[in-house]
Formats: sequence, structure tokens, C-alpha cells
Amino acid sequence: MRRNLAQVSGGERELRTYYLRPFERACASTNPAIDGGSLALSLMSAYASYDGIPTISNYHILTEILREEWQFPYYVTTDAGSPDLLITWHDTCATRECAAQQTLENGLQMEMGGGSYTYLTLPDQVASGTVNEYYIDETVKTVLRTKFALGLFENPYPYGDYLSTLRTQATRDILHQMEQEQIVLLENKNNVLPLSRNISSIALIGPQVNRVTYGDYVFYNATLNGITPLQGFTELLANTSVEINFAQGCELWSNDESQFSEAIAAAKASDVAIVMVGTWSLDQTLLWEPGTNATTGEHVDLSSLDLVGAQMPLVQAIQAVGKPTIVVFVSGKPISEPWIQANVDAVVQQFYYGELGGLAIAEIIFGDANPSGRLPVSFPQNVGTAPAFYNYLKDGRPVSPGYITPNGTLVFGHQYVLNTPVPIWSFGHGLSYTSFNYTDLELSSSTIGTSDDFNVTVTVHNTGAVDGKEVVQARLSDVYLTDVVSSVVTPNQFLAAFTKVFVPAGGAETVTMQINSTQLGLWSLNNEWVVEPGNFTIKVGTSATTFLNTTLIVQ
Amino acid sequence: MRRNLAQVSGGERELRTYYLRPFERACASTNPAIDGGSLALSLMSAYASYDGIPTISNYHILTEILREEWQFPYYVTTDAGSPDLLITWHDTCATRECAAQQTLENGLQMEMGGGSYTYLTLPDQVASGTVNEYYIDETVKTVLRTKFALGLFENPYPYGDYLSTLRTQATRDILHQMEQEQIVLLENKNNVLPLSRNISSIALIGPQVNRVTYGDYVFYNATLNGITPLQGFTELLANTSVEINFAQGCELWSNDESQFSEAIAAAKASDVAIVMVGTWSLDQTLLWEPGTNATTGEHVDLSSLDLVGAQMPLVQAIQAVGKPTIVVFVSGKPISEPWIQANVDAVVQQFYYGELGGLAIAEIIFGDANPSGRLPVSFPQNVGTAPAFYNYLKDGRPVSPGYITPNGTLVFGHQYVLNTPVPIWSFGHGLSYTSFNYTDLELSSSTIGTSDDFNVTVTVHNTGAVDGKEVVQARLSDVYLTDVVSSVVTPNQFLAAFTKVFVPAGGAETVTMQINSTQLGLWSLNNEWVVEPGNFTIKVGTSATTFLNTTLIVQ
Repeated sequence: MRRNLAQVSGGERELRTYYLRPFERACASTNPAIDGGSLALSLMSAYASYDGIPTISNYHILTEILREEWQFPYYVTTDAGSPDLLITWHDTCATRECAAQQTLENGLQMEMGGGSYTYLTLPDQVASGTVNEYYIDETVKTVLRTKFALGLFENPYPYGDYLSTLRTQATRDILHQMEQEQIVLLENKNNVLPLSRNISSIALIGPQVNRVTYGDYVFYNATLNGITPLQGFTELLANTSVEINFAQGCELWSNDESQFSEAIAAAKASDVAIVMVGTWSLDQTLLWEPGTNATTGEHVDLSSLDLVGAQMPLVQAIQAVGKPTIVVFVSGKPISEPWIQANVDAVVQQFYYGELGGLAIAEIIFGDANPSGRLPVSFPQNVGTAPAFYNYLKDGRPVSPGYITPNGTLVFGHQYVLNTPVPIWSFGHGLSYTSFNYTDLELSSSTIGTSDDFNVTVTVHNTGAVDGKEVVQARLSDVYLTDVVSSVVTPNQFLAAFTKVFVPAGGAETVTMQINSTQLGLWSLNNEWVVEPGNFTIKVGTSATTFLNTTLIVQ
Repeated sequence: MRRNLAQVSGGERELRTYYLRPFERACASTNPAIDGGSLALSLMSAYASYDGIPTISNYHILTEILREEWQFPYYVTTDAGSPDLLITWHDTCATRECAAQQTLENGLQMEMGGGSYTYLTLPDQVASGTVNEYYIDETVKTVLRTKFALGLFENPYPYGDYLSTLRTQATRDILHQMEQEQIVLLENKNNVLPLSRNISSIALIGPQVNRVTYGDYVFYNATLNGITPLQGFTELLANTSVEINFAQGCELWSNDESQFSEAIAAAKASDVAIVMVGTWSLDQTLLWEPGTNATTGEHVDLSSLDLVGAQMPLVQAIQAVGKPTIVVFVSGKPISEPWIQANVDAVVQQFYYGELGGLAIAEIIFGDANPSGRLPVSFPQNVGTAPAFYNYLKDGRPVSPGYITPNGTLVFGHQYVLNTPVPIWSFGHGLSYTSFNYTDLELSSSTIGTSDDFNVTVTVHNTGAVDGKEVVQARLSDVYLTDVVSSVVTPNQFLAAFTKVFVPAGGAETVTMQINSTQLGLWSLNNEWVVEPGNFTIKVGTSATTFLNTTLIVQ
């Protein structure tokens, strides 16, 4: 929801503990991957300031951490027009010369277009001695390192024949798998899903049925290459007797309910109602065109996570018909509609998809694919209970929820007075058409030293009737027994490792995950990573609430 | 809205720029006030952690800043049971001994009750050598210094006859003035206020009319000593012919609308409708009693800033009657109801009051007192547009609002898609029954050095028909022209000084405010306060949008 130019609050510990971990994993040269070690071959900086320092002129992040600590060898680019913002918004410079110097000397190499090209001042600044040529040399080195790593001097046009690499059977297969595996089954009461091909009809209702919904920054008209859900269901059910009754019901961007009656009729005429609602974005051309609309994408900020317009009334009108009702969220962010969780039969989350998304959702609904996606984000009850993140620092977090009964009675709690901080669905949540059971959780060693890596092994049993893929999650929660004064507050839990494993119906698979000792570290009062002796709880399971656990002793 | 145990995000610059300024002003011994210099004679720590360090064991804040930088000589106490939370919630200790040591040695002297009294372990810890007696000595010194400063050794019972000091004419007069001056006139369309005593009747409607509303932590039944608004209006209008038609309309804590018809009848029978709604808390006994309700107070957290229950429908039902409608918010926090701003004739904010608040609101409404309060907080459009603070860091903050028309048409913007970040009423806002004009803004010097204090002088003219008090606000906004790389992002504006001045109708007063050079400082990349040369804009006026401005050059 936050505007991408707004100030970001946070200290050094929060920076290290929350924000930098994935970047370190991708960028640090200690990672034995491509070439110099870094997996990432370039980075782009953010527009925002962090604790009052613009990211593009943040010496601590760009040089001290990225270059000196992580030894990142490649280039960093600004976002579009970002150096000019030092003059027009951040007010740390009055001139283009200053903006170029401040950006370059603090550790940022490439200036993207979209602004006044402040780096054009650099030749004169070097000539006049205000900018040391050293920074130009360093900049050129990072760009050349990226080109060497890509082999561009040996083979400058590696994709000269790139058209032949698009939409091959192999890439279609990978895309198809991705489309299926990103879908998350959130709710499935009485196993209403998957649907059987023996039913006689389905109603496909809602403004997400007959459109292709990608995220922003796809090319103009890219959606023309995609399959709509309506096309996907039609294709999947082509050789069956299942009839499809489609009614859009409403637009995504309007409160107009004039099409509701048609949608209600479609639901009444069908065995099952599938209602597809959500958010939408625009392609890179339309995104910036005046007069267009969107509810996700760059420079699109929301003050609410509820469904927009007539979508929620549409869901309620269809649910009231009394047929089994399945809601599909097609969205680029969590939707905060607890009524839907409480009142419909199944809820499926389909994040913004690719060209085969319309087919994949049909396959999931009819069980041709077994859902195996997990939420990468929590769904708060409403915007007033955000932020909702699973790895909050230990703070007691007493939950004493209040609520309003369907007849309007106010039942008061305290956290919150008439709501709850517990998300509708939490990070890591996702159901399957089969069931999994965990046994034999073992650590490679129950007692380790502070710099020892360790393995977690567990056996996953598919106890249901269909094959399925399970996301095994290992969450760490440390219980410090040390009385050293320098201890700090750590996350109540965090995901230290996960893996996805296919287990046939009735079968079992044993999986092993390696956890690096650095995962046990905290950012100490002395501003360094320290693994402190103590007891850590390791929870391994299918979600935050269903798991085996064991204790790891660090000495 | 945030739970008072939740983690607080922020870095050192935000700590200095936003959070510590008022504490420094109250505590630093450079302040030539009482005794050693500090205005504050003791402090209480918070429960929360800041960037992962519990406040009660935060050596940087408690010792490095408070003792070493500010030379604060007196004691700091924990909040109730706070050291135990190091064991049960923050997990930085496993034992009471550790909790006591971590709290004491990092710079916190007194342990409040409400927990297990971990400091009882200190004698044994000193005896066994785990805690150095030095810390006990330092603790005792701070407590003794406070007692000396209070003269408790010369006069141990200064208020032995305290009953005679309560509710004297002198304290009643001060209270009466405070009650009037805290009220903020937010909206006054067509000068509907003040009401004339020549009208024949008023309707007093709403759940805030016939009750006394204090904040939390007043003594049990303290409200019995207060005047309700109903009593206040009755007293004020005793010798007039103005009739009062009272109808409660609804409870604060219920959606029940069964009393609406009576309230609508009262409005129809009256010349003017005054609707009093808002939030409420409980006294220190009831606040913690199971089964009670409140919408403000400790451990009372909200996920919405809208009016609770049937209050908003009540306001709408009364406004629909068609009589001039005045809404009074009695509340301890901003209320996010833009409909009220747009649709009623006047809005008055009365924050939680004292024993004479019920009289003061009647005096304001009938013009016996001229409103002179200003908002200490901004009123966001809704909870999804929070935080809304006037002194945000410079970030461009493009405002491209969207909205929903009364007939339901969605008009899309971007910041926010269907809303605006601009508050309903902003920090510093407040109207008067007279009008003020500003002239002759002058600086003691338009060019100063980086360590020079300066004066701002302005003449305030009362151009209306009644006497009034004006809050003259001096806001600073810096426009750095320096190209020094160490510059950081600063607040777009902040209130550097203010003063309240009485100006008779038709008269003028010249006011001078001193601004210390430290107000020009930024928290530098080298972690120190620095006044950087450059141009600062000084805005002096009645609000964020109505002001004179001038430029101060710092060399």
C-alpha cells in the first residue's frame, strides 16, 4: 500500500534481520555460484530513503555492505530518474552536478534514463577535478565484470535467434507447471474441491473470468497472448458434458450491479458457482496513461485491501443462491475479506499469472493438478490490522479479539477492540487435495557449536488418495538461555529452509534440508552477526500451526 | 492504534529527529530550569523494543544519551512488571536475576510493581559479585537527587493539608480556562457558530451528552466529580429562554438504533441540532475488569478510527432532518469520518476533559468563549491512510487522489487509488469566531551563522468583531543548497516555535518568538547534530496553509 517514494523507517538491526537477508543470499560473493560468486549480475536501487538517507546515495548500504562486506563485483543501477529526485524531492542537492557526484561517489554505478541524465555532467566534473576519476574507473569495472560474466565479449549476441526460443514445448511445459504450482488452495470446506467431471454444469461468474490478468510492466498488449480462464475452462471441459454458464456480473472498477441478475441466473442454472474476483494492473504503456485505472502496480497505492466496487456484493449475491460456491482471487496482493473465508465453500488464490494461467486455474479446480502453492504473504483481516507478518519480533502479542456478530452486536476485546491481529490466512498457508503426515524429525546433531551447519531430516507421508507435492517448511525459533547483556530481541520465528517434494498417494519421502549456522545469528549490539549459545526450537511441518518440533542446543 | 508492546521500527536518525526532541527539551541539563537543569524529575520507560532492543535494557538510550549526552540527574522507573517481560516476552533473559541485572546495568534505576520484583534479587547478586555495587550506588544517587530537588528532606510532607488545595477558586479558574482552550473548532460553515441565545431551542443528541468522559487511569468513579455536557448547557442557559431537547439516540458501544426516532423528533422540535459522539475510556479500576468496553486507553487497540456502533448512522439521521447540525467529537484520538466534514454545518473537537468540560463545551457553542485550540494530531481520511503526520520526510509525496462519488461512481487516482493521503484536518488546524491577519514578518537577522539563535517577529491583527486568542505557529522548512555529500533527508516542515496571543477585536499585537539554532540541525551521517549552511524557509501563520513566509540564510 505504501507509496514507493515514501520514507522507510528502520534501524540497522531491522535492515539486517529483515530486509538484507535475501539480498545477501543473492549478492554475497561467498555464495559459490556464477563467476565471482554472486548469483545476481546487477542490482537496481530503490527511490525511497531509509532512516533519512536516499538509497541511491546511501554509502553504508551501497559501499560498506554491498562492496566491502559482500564483495559484490557487478554494477548497481538507479531506478528511472532517481538522481534528479535528490534535487526535486529529497533536497540533498541543488544541482545536477551534485546529484551525479552524490550518487556516484556513494557507490552507485549506472544512471537509468527517465530523468535529466545527471551523469552527463561527470566528464566536466572529472576534468575540473570535483569528481575523482577513481570513481569512473570503479564504475566501468563493475559494468565490464557483468559483461565478462555474461560472456558478451566472446558472444555479443547470444540470443540473435531469440524468436526461436519463445514458446517452445519445453518452455511451455515449465510455464505450465509454474502456473499450476503458484496457485494456493486457501479454503476447502467438506472437500468441495476438486470438482468432478460428472457434474452437469458450472457457473463461471465475475470480472476475472473473461480477461487475462498479468502484473504491471508487461509489454503493451502482452495479454493478447494469454488464455482467459473462460478459455481455459472451455478447453479443459471440451470433451466432457459439463456445461459452462458464464456471466461477468460486474466490472472490476465499478459499483454498477445491473448485471447481477444475469449472474444469479447463471448460478441458479448450475451445479456449482465459481466466482472470480480480485485486483488488476496495466501494461507498461497503459499504466502511465492518464484516465486509466488499476488497483496494483507502480504508483498505484491503496488505502484498503478490500475488494473494489461491486465485487464483494456480487460474491454475496451468488453465495446467497445456495449452490456450492468457490471464490477465486486473482490478485497481486492480499484481499481482506473475512466474510468470504467464513461463508463460501472454497477459496483459491491465483496470483498474477502468465500465458497459461487461464488453463491452470481450470486444471486446479477440476483436480487435473493438485494445488501445492503456499502463501508468500499473510492476509490481514482488514487494512487496519496491517502490517501482518509472521516473523514479528517477540513482543508477547496478546491476542484478545473482539468482533461484531452477524446481527450487529458489538463484542469488545482489546487486541483489537472489534477485530483480531491474527490474519485470515498466514504466510506459508496452503492446502492440498491429499493429506500429509510427518514422522521421524531428526537433526544431524542435537548439539552444535556456534559456527556449525546442521541438517534437518523428516519423512513426509502422503496419507490421502491422490499424488501431491508438499512444501516442507523449517521454521526457527530461538529461546535464548544466555544471560549475556548484549542479547537483543529476535523474531518469534522465521522460515530457515523449505523444499518441495512429490509424494505419491500412500507413499513416503524422506527429505533433508541443510541449515547454515548463519541462520541462527542475531545482529548484535556490537553491530555484527553473532550466533549466541542457547536453545533453538526447530519446527518442521506444513504450516505455522501444524508441525513437528525439536530442540537444537548451541554451545 | 498500535499495541503498546509491539516492536517499534526506526533508526538512529528517526530516533533523534522525531522521538527524542521533546524528551531532550524536558530532560537535558542544558535547560536552565529547576535545580540541576532538567525540567523532568523522573522518567518512565516504555514496554516496547526499538530496533530490537527492549527500552528498559537499552544502554544507548538510557545511558549514552540520557546520562552522558543530556546529563539527566534523576531516576528512571520501569513501567509495571516490565523487567519480567525480558523473560516472558522479549526473551533476552531466562531468569529474574538476569532481568534485574540487564535492566539495572543498562541504566534503569527503579522497578515498578506489577511484576515479580526482580530487583529483590539484587542484594544476593551484589553479595555474590555478579552485580557490581557501583550500579546500586548510582541508582540510589538518582533517587536521592530527585528527593533533594523536591525538598523532601526539608519538608517531607509538603501536601499534608492537600485537601485544602483541591478545587479552590484559583485552581477552578485555571481548569476552566484549560477546558475552554483545549477545544478545537474544526469546521464552521457560514458561521453557524456561535449560537445566539435568541434561538428558541436546541437539540442535544448523542451518547456523549449525558456522561462525563475522561481519559483512562483516573481514579475509580472520578467522573462523579465532573459536569456532563447536559448539565453544562443547562447551567449556561438557565436564565435564558432557550429550551433544551435531549435525546441520547444510541449507546456508544452498540449498533442498536431503537432510540433514533426519539432523537430525530428532538431535532425536528429544535432550531439547531448538536450531536455529541466519539470515543471513550475507563477509569483505572474498570479498565482492567473483564467484560468492560472502551475504545481508547492502555491495552485498548483499534483497527479502525471510524465512529463505533450506531453513532455514524445517528449523525446521518439527524443531519437528514435538515436543521443546522453541529457535531461535537469527544474523543481521545482522531476520528476518520470525512462524511461529517463534508455534510454537517460545524464540527467541534473536544478532547478528553476535566471536571468542567461539560460547561466549557456549552460556553464555546454559545460564544461565551472563543475557540483557540489547535490540533496536536492530524485526522486521516481513514485508517488505511495512516500514518498521517505533517512533518514527514521530503519524498515528493505526489497527491493524485481518487474518490467515490455519492452515487457510487469510482473515480480512480493513484495516491490513493480511491482516497487521498491529505488529512481531513491537519496538525495545527483550528478556527476562531474572529479572523486574524498577519503582517510585518521579520527575522532578527536574515543571515546568521550556524550556531546563532534568531528571533521571528510578526504582527497579528484581529480583523473580526470579537476578541480572540491566536496560536501563532512558526514552521521551519529547510532548502539545502549545500552540495556536501553528508546531507540527509529532512522533514518537509516542522513546528519550531509557537505562542498564543490575545488580540482584542480590531486590535493588533506584535509577537516575537526565539528559535534556537539547534532547531536548524539535522542528525548527520556522522551521528551528530549539525547545522548545515543553506536556505531555510520560515513560515509564520495560523495553519499549514495560511502563513507569511521568509527566507533565513545560514552561512
